Amino acid sequence: MKILVLNGPNLNLLGTREPDKYGSDTLNSIEKFLYREAKNLNVEIAFEQSNIEGELVTKIQQAKGVYDGIIINPAAYTHTSIAIRDAILAVELPVVEIHISNIHKREEFRHISMTAPVCIGQITGFGKNSYKLGLIALYDYLIQYNV
Amino acid sequence: MKILVLNGPNLNLLGTREPDKYGSDTLNSIEKFLYREAKNLNVEIAFEQSNIEGELVTKIQQAKGVYDGIIINPAAYTHTSIAIRDAILAVELPVVEIHISNIHKREEFRHISMTAPVCIGQITGFGKNSYKLGLIALYDYLIQYNV
Amino acid sequence: MKILVLNGPNLNLLGTREPDKYGSDTLNSIEKFLYREAKNLNVEIAFEQSNIEGELVTKIQQAKGVYDGIIINPAAYTHTSIAIRDAILAVELPVVEIHISNIHKREEFRHISMTAPVCIGQITGFGKNSYKLGLIALYDYLIQYNV
Amino acid sequence: MKILVLNGPNLNLLGTREPDKYGSDTLNSIEKFLYREAKNLNVEIAFEQSNIEGELVTKIQQAKGVYDGIIINPAAYTHTSIAIRDAILAVELPVVEIHISNIHKREEFRHISMTAPVCIGQITGFGKNSYKLGLIALYDYLIQYNV
Amino acid sequence: MKILVLNGPNLNLLGTREPDKYGSDTLNSIEKFLYREAKNLNVEIAFEQSNIEGELVTKIQQAKGVYDGIIINPAAYTHTSIAIRDAILAVELPVVEIHISNIHKREEFRHISMTAPVCIGQITGFGKNSYKLGLIALYDYLIQYNV
Amino acid sequence: MKILVLNGPNLNLLGTREPDKYGSDTLNSIEKFLYREAKNLNVEIAFEQSNIEGELVTKIQQAKGVYDGIIINPAAYTHTSIAIRDAILAVELPVVEIHISNIHKREEFRHISMTAPVCIGQITGFGKNSYKLGLIALYDYLIQYNV
Amino acid sequence: MKILVLNGPNLNLLGTREPDKYGSDTLNSIEKFLYREAKNLNVEIAFEQSNIEGELVTKIQQAKGVYDGIIINPAAYTHTSIAIRDAILAVELPVVEIHISNIHKREEFRHISMTAPVCIGQITGFGKNSYKLGLIALYDYLIQYNV
Amino acid sequence: MKILVLNGPNLNLLGTREPDKYGSDTLNSIEKFLYREAKNLNVEIAFEQSNIEGELVTKIQQAKGVYDGIIINPAAYTHTSIAIRDAILAVELPVVEIHISNIHKREEFRHISMTAPVCIGQITGFGKNSYKLGLIALYDYLIQYNV
Amino acid sequence: MKILVLNGPNLNLLGTREPDKYGSDTLNSIEKFLYREAKNLNVEIAFEQSNIEGELVTKIQQAKGVYDGIIINPAAYTHTSIAIRDAILAVELPVVEIHISNIHKREEFRHISMTAPVCIGQITGFGKNSYKLGLIALYDYLIQYNV
Amino acid sequence: MKILVLNGPNLNLLGTREPDKYGSDTLNSIEKFLYREAKNLNVEIAFEQSNIEGELVTKIQQAKGVYDGIIINPAAYTHTSIAIRDAILAVELPVVEIHISNIHKREEFRHISMTAPVCIGQITGFGKNSYKLGLIALYDYLIQYNV
Amino acid sequence: MKILVLNGPNLNLLGTREPDKYGSDTLNSIEKFLYREAKNLNVEIAFEQSNIEGELVTKIQQAKGVYDGIIINPAAYTHTSIAIRDAILAVELPVVEIHISNIHKREEFRHISMTAPVCIGQITGFGKNSYKLGLIALYDYLIQYNV
Amino acid sequence: MKILVLNGPNLNLLGTREPDKYGSDTLNSIEKFLYREAKNLNVEIAFEQSNIEGELVTKIQQAKGVYDGIIINPAAYTHTSIAIRDAILAVELPVVEIHISNIHKREEFRHISMTAPVCIGQITGFGKNSYKLGLIALYDYLIQYNV
Repeated sequence: MKILVLNGPNLNLLGTREPDKYGSDTLNSIEKFLYREAKNLNVEIAFEQSNIEGELVTKIQQAKGVYDGIIINPAAYTHTSIAIRDAILAVELPVVEIHISNIHKREEFRHISMTAPVCIGQITGFGKNSYKLGLIALYDYLIQYNV
Repeated sequence: MKILVLNGPNLNLLGTREPDKYGSDTLNSIEKFLYREAKNLNVEIAFEQSNIEGELVTKIQQAKGVYDGIIINPAAYTHTSIAIRDAILAVELPVVEIHISNIHKREEFRHISMTAPVCIGQITGFGKNSYKLGLIALYDYLIQYNV
Repeated sequence: MKILVLNGPNLNLLGTREPDKYGSDTLNSIEKFLYREAKNLNVEIAFEQSNIEGELVTKIQQAKGVYDGIIINPAAYTHTSIAIRDAILAVELPVVEIHISNIHKREEFRHISMTAPVCIGQITGFGKNSYKLGLIALYDYLIQYNV
Repeated sequence: MKILVLNGPNLNLLGTREPDKYGSDTLNSIEKFLYREAKNLNVEIAFEQSNIEGELVTKIQQAKGVYDGIIINPAAYTHTSIAIRDAILAVELPVVEIHISNIHKREEFRHISMTAPVCIGQITGFGKNSYKLGLIALYDYLIQYNV
Repeated sequence: MKILVLNGPNLNLLGTREPDKYGSDTLNSIEKFLYREAKNLNVEIAFEQSNIEGELVTKIQQAKGVYDGIIINPAAYTHTSIAIRDAILAVELPVVEIHISNIHKREEFRHISMTAPVCIGQITGFGKNSYKLGLIALYDYLIQYNV
Repeated sequence: MKILVLNGPNLNLLGTREPDKYGSDTLNSIEKFLYREAKNLNVEIAFEQSNIEGELVTKIQQAKGVYDGIIINPAAYTHTSIAIRDAILAVELPVVEIHISNIHKREEFRHISMTAPVCIGQITGFGKNSYKLGLIALYDYLIQYNV
Repeated sequence: MKILVLNGPNLNLLGTREPDKYGSDTLNSIEKFLYREAKNLNVEIAFEQSNIEGELVTKIQQAKGVYDGIIINPAAYTHTSIAIRDAILAVELPVVEIHISNIHKREEFRHISMTAPVCIGQITGFGKNSYKLGLIALYDYLIQYNV
Repeated sequence: MKILVLNGPNLNLLGTREPDKYGSDTLNSIEKFLYREAKNLNVEIAFEQSNIEGELVTKIQQAKGVYDGIIINPAAYTHTSIAIRDAILAVELPVVEIHISNIHKREEFRHISMTAPVCIGQITGFGKNSYKLGLIALYDYLIQYNV
Repeated sequence: MKILVLNGPNLNLLGTREPDKYGSDTLNSIEKFLYREAKNLNVEIAFEQSNIEGELVTKIQQAKGVYDGIIINPAAYTHTSIAIRDAILAVELPVVEIHISNIHKREEFRHISMTAPVCIGQITGFGKNSYKLGLIALYDYLIQYNV
Repeated sequence: MKILVLNGPNLNLLGTREPDKYGSDTLNSIEKFLYREAKNLNVEIAFEQSNIEGELVTKIQQAKGVYDGIIINPAAYTHTSIAIRDAILAVELPVVEIHISNIHKREEFRHISMTAPVCIGQITGFGKNSYKLGLIALYDYLIQYNV
Repeated sequence: MKILVLNGPNLNLLGTREPDKYGSDTLNSIEKFLYREAKNLNVEIAFEQSNIEGELVTKIQQAKGVYDGIIINPAAYTHTSIAIRDAILAVELPVVEIHISNIHKREEFRHISMTAPVCIGQITGFGKNSYKLGLIALYDYLIQYNV
Repeated sequence: MKILVLNGPNLNLLGTREPDKYGSDTLNSIEKFLYREAKNLNVEIAFEQSNIEGELVTKIQQAKGVYDGIIINPAAYTHTSIAIRDAILAVELPVVEIHISNIHKREEFRHISMTAPVCIGQITGFGKNSYKLGLIALYDYLIQYNV
């Protein structure tokens, strides 16, 4: 089983700044943490990040035939990107949307997600554990539906 | 570690009706499924359901001093209940909000949650696995913060 | 043929107060009036009232297998209750929504119904005759579809 | 007792098209069905249809002194016509608004009625029976108020 | 003169939690404080609380003929309950709405009251003194109108 | 100088009904009243009415080359008719919009005019004198601009 | 008959600036023009202007017992002043609202009037003639109702 | 192949007025221009216009069985007519909506179309060529689906 | 203890007009009534009124160091004045907002207060007793916090 | 004559997925189809696609001096991109906006176009023929205005 | 070169209160600071403040012919004053709007400026330096356009 | 002191097109102009532009540790980019937002800025001088806080 973990804009800065809001983990330490979790489940993961909306679109498209599913943290693009939404629809892979902070506790423009309606589900607010929970959620989904 | 699992209105009908929307699991089979997961984590859980908003408020209040945290599926009250929101604030226990179906895929009035902003986080869309993911999320939170 | 007639909050006060808005009939006299109409159609009816949203949810749930259909006057809960809406969806019985006064003539927050979209239809504004019309509407529906 | 039954735009196409939405009855068969019901009540009815908003206004105006009341299915004009609303107010006859389909189940722009606030009441969603229910409702109203 | 003091959801938790927002008085100490004030005015008061919306509706209904007026702190139900609004209208007793904290200083969804438009007036923001002010306001009203 | 006075839907019922809202003058007596005023100014007027939006559009179009200006009371179509608005724009005649009652005192949907932005001005609320004031306003405009 | 003509903020600048929008007449020349019209009707007028909202409020209040009616051009305060609205209500004199330019042709925030709903009517768009038309409108109103 | 070309209100004035907005072509010259285009495609066309909404509804209804498809320029009715929308749905003929000017460049109330959602597609902004493009679009559609 | 009682626009007209809305008390009689109440509490009060928003701002500013707190009835400025709001914030004196009528029962634009969020609390709807209740509320507050 | 055909995000996936919504044509087959159409008109076309908003902006900028006009299918960026809108304005080339599916039949957030107001016109809903129609529309425009 | 610096309501309190929001500078120290800056540029400035909207309007009007431009900090009136907006338009002097705090960081009702659209530009958020920046901006503007 | 000047989409086209809206300066001439100003202040500046939102995000991130602050003209992304907003928050450098034209004078969708709330302040409307004013504003800020 192979899973793509896709990270949106500014997530490359995780941990080194604003630790009170996003926790002190770096994207790199989250990646390592998730590798260990994935290994336990015998899952292979790839971990990528981009600040460019269109590059995220391309990465989603290229996942087809290579990965069995996608875990995505679209960050700031969550609330505005119809392009990422369309890419998820087009690629027909199961996708789980995750967020490190609880988006419902933040500014009102972060309460609505353009992408969640085309994902299996959404996990928000558990720090780096949101990645782990997303992995388990996607793993169980793939097992259950034998994708 | 003791956790209260609270289920809102109409969830007592789970599984016997509308299986295409909510899956074929009954609330009872979800309870059993969750007991097994909890046992693995050495967590004790209590599983309750009520159709009455004010009873859910009372159950949240009475959890103080008895449970270490709450997993809540407020169902229809998610989108309108300020009373449940206030109870969660007052009781000062960590709470995880879960939903069986993906609320972002449904009617627009189900996209906004009155309770999520006062929970640790929200998990939505993974069928009965939303309960399992909520359990892991709350367990990790309690371990981490040593509550 | 057995039909449940369900009345929402404050309808127990009918007739004794504000007769200019709701008419001078009490809920009890409406019940008797409806029994006579039902007898003519050879229909058995049960007549219940509750001020508690969650109790109405429970009564709808328990109607399954006991009644062939429901006539509901959700009163104040008409405009806010997602829980009653979900109960009607779950119970899969034909339901007719009625109102004694014409809700379109009253405050703007009473113009929209959360429950009407999941009922067969809605009858509003004919005083106690709304009950009689609801009975005929449900009766004809049950005959036609042979439920 | 004489009653005018007024039908708005596109209702002349009933039955021959989109039977899944509006039923298989033609406006003609509904007219015959309603004549039988009216005969039982000893009521004389006239049955008219127009696609033109202003013609419906004129027909309402001319009903004064000729009919005791009006049953109106304003169809598409329900949601936009201030002119029909004003005509109903001006003519001071009791009017019952009916709809074949349940307007609350359809597009959001069909949920609000410009005309219902100036009618006795509204009946929506019971197929051709909406006409029969409208007739009984208006009949009872005229008897009760001795108009 | 007899007055019912009605308290809504979560007010039973007063004083023991979140004292920075609601003050350190418990509902019990407020009750005692109010008894003293009432004794000075030679008024008899009854002090009740419920978390259930429908129970509050019932208590309001049953106040008719027993009490001369009601002081209500509807708490979370202030902003959503049409049922409590309708009960106040139906019972035709003078009602004063009070709040411990200043609702205009809190979240926007707490700025609008469904119940205040059917009360004599509203007092908000004076801690436990809101109860005392409400008592004086209702007392003066009853004296003035000789109810 | 020749002026067309155009009256919209339901104005043919003026005076005979709802005199408290629209005054007791009939459209016919207003016509006579306006003829006298016009005679004093040495202006020739034509007075027409229609319930049909499209007929009003046609009458406006045909005024070109025949009349020097138009006084229009679009009645219910004031608030919805883009077609009448477009006709006024196309015909390039000076138009004055008038209303018998003060539209700002009535329902909110009557506060906005689709046609006023393409007229010289609007006069609202002076009973039959609105017609007289409209005549003077248009007369002065035509004199001033030597149309 | 005595009439107060009240002019709001910036109207003292009329004529000397932006003549394309407001015409080349000064407030002074309008005053003289209106005196001539008033003389023909045997009406005495007083003509005042202020840039201060509260002074306009005071002038309206003091008109009681001195004038038979008021013509007001509230200018910029038209769209925001609840204080002037309340003053008009309190003084119980007939008031006609006028505007030199057609407010419906200008920015959207100028389409709504806070004061028009408490005036007899509104006249907008006829340059200095709006004053003359307002005078005639108020004169006829006072004659008719024998104020 | 036979196609009906339907033109809404005020289009009969095309070319003779406001040429800067709608071009200098008359409806008649557009008709001739379109005949030539149709002849090249071996298509027979009928070209009609009405200012009356209900007449356009009737013309759409009567097209059934006579024409293979409709090109419609609903003009001002585009943005408000639910009746034309319902007629297009009922008649089940392929319809192409066209506009001479680019409706997205004009007033905001012209940006939304009530009819476009029930047409094959919409062409807006190309002057008389919008008719030619609509003809080609409908022709290709009919060929492709062998209607 | 010294308290400033500040009254906004049109309150100088109290009692002499619209007694059904504001009661028959004049501002003068309210002032005397309040002096008696203040004397009982051994409080010195000053009673002022202005129709000018900016004067109210100045009076609030000048209260600093002279008075211990302010009772304000901002009247029409309640709903629009950011300037008074800012003055209250700047002066850092405890302020109680009062209204004679119940603002929640009146027009929708009177339901929201710009000033209440920066006051201790708000009292609305008790006639002249609102002043007395405001005095008690402010008195208790000053005693409690030893200002 | 040289024309640039610009395709937005996800259009590179055309035909291989979701053929029920976008047809079975690939972007490549559309390109070939359009070459044939262009050859008939003796027009040279370049066909490009990008998932990145800023790259589309750059391509539009670079078209100046190289191409005579642009056909653009902005896909998901249609509804949000002010940057593409500004680029079209800046480059001062004639642009035609096209869509394969009928955007008015889809989600509400796809009904409004940020780019259409700065294009000549918009063509939506005709499958691959939208490209052909766009080509003819732009060709006719360039011929007519001799650009 | 002579410039008027105009300060709105509550700015006379600057520095002595709420220094965390507006800085510790008094209006007087800002005035002195600005005099030094102005001297360097060889510009003469006048520095005024008023709490009264209408007085600010008058000061703007009287600046004509005396000053070459205006720097205005309208404070609370920024967001509501159409009167100041109209005065700026009428006086035809170049005006620069400044704010000490960043209005976009504060309450939502402070994000929109009624006056900025009629100024050259707006500077917001730089403490007392906003005055200096405004001076430079206006100076450069006057030099450039040789006013 | 080192400052990054960041320019958003389409600014590379400045000066060569639409000089009436953006002035005749090219981005290059603005850069030179700003270098001279910076030299006087002994500040080193880097001047960059990109059409791609994600590249601007990356440039902001990389400024950390290299520059002391940022002047940003986000152009079209001002109104939609949560990603640039998040980058500014994350990088914790002082940022000044500037615009060449006055955004408050343009389309409504340009009145709101997503980025201004996380900047020190915003300067809008002074042509190329906006860059100079932004430089002075940032310079003063850095000196004052000794960053």
